Amino acid sequence: MQLVSIGTVSSPLKHRDDAPKQGDEGAPEAWLEIDTAVTEGLDGLAVGEELLVLTWLDRAERDVLRVNPRNDPSRGFQGVFSTRSPDRPNPIGLHRVTVLELDGARLRVSGLEALDGTPILDLKPLLRSIDER
Amino acid sequence: MQLVSIGTVSSPLKHRDDAPKQGDEGAPEAWLEIDTAVTEGLDGLAVGEELLVLTWLDRAERDVLRVNPRNDPSRGFQGVFSTRSPDRPNPIGLHRVTVLELDGARLRVSGLEALDGTPILDLKPLLRSIDER
Repeated sequence: MQLVSIGTVSSPLKHRDDAPKQGDEGAPEAWLEIDTAVTEGLDGLAVGEELLVLTWLDRAERDVLRVNPRNDPSRGFQGVFSTRSPDRPNPIGLHRVTVLELDGARLRVSGLEALDGTPILDLKPLLRSIDER
Repeated sequence: MQLVSIGTVSSPLKHRDDAPKQGDEGAPEAWLEIDTAVTEGLDGLAVGEELLVLTWLDRAERDVLRVNPRNDPSRGFQGVFSTRSPDRPNPIGLHRVTVLELDGARLRVSGLEALDGTPILDLKPLLRSIDER
């Protein structure tokens, strides 16, 4: 199961310590720079739409199975599958964003907590009937 | 970017033609059989919780960039990133389910449209503030 990068995040967030835990906690706008090999796949996307962006959190640790959420001692340690920690066997980031601008193969999106240079794996339209049922 | 399987879907759905397009369209209950190597990561999950299950849709086509959603001629062809088609460069399935039963390293979950034998990549708790904002 080998992933391919479909593009890269361009963001002012350079280090993990700079990043908010989730996109609604003060994350900046970012550009999704989509590779020219797959730009045909963008056909049909429009400004104002909400997307789910899947990324490869390449600075995460993959051999961690228990974490202390938000480094909050009162929460103790939990299994990674009951948390949204980036550290997990397959560090796939799931980010909900709004498309603010389309510029060829570049998409400017609202609050994204992924770091600069993070590989992009997939874009999916939000389906309210499924994702918010 | 090499994925590892954390488990396998056990489902009565055996063929792609049998599967509904989305989990709320009549998909059956399924078991998530989690590998013993990562069961520690399940700590903290409970019956009744909603999860996002990420799978590797191993029977999808990866070289497709435009699809005809739901084989509906009136919709024409669209770029895969504006659809939820399984056919896409990284065929990662995203499924929202409810945990119905926990039996050691096996989780019985509500309506899952993934096929029997589909590799599981990740489990994430649903965060209403993010996933449903």
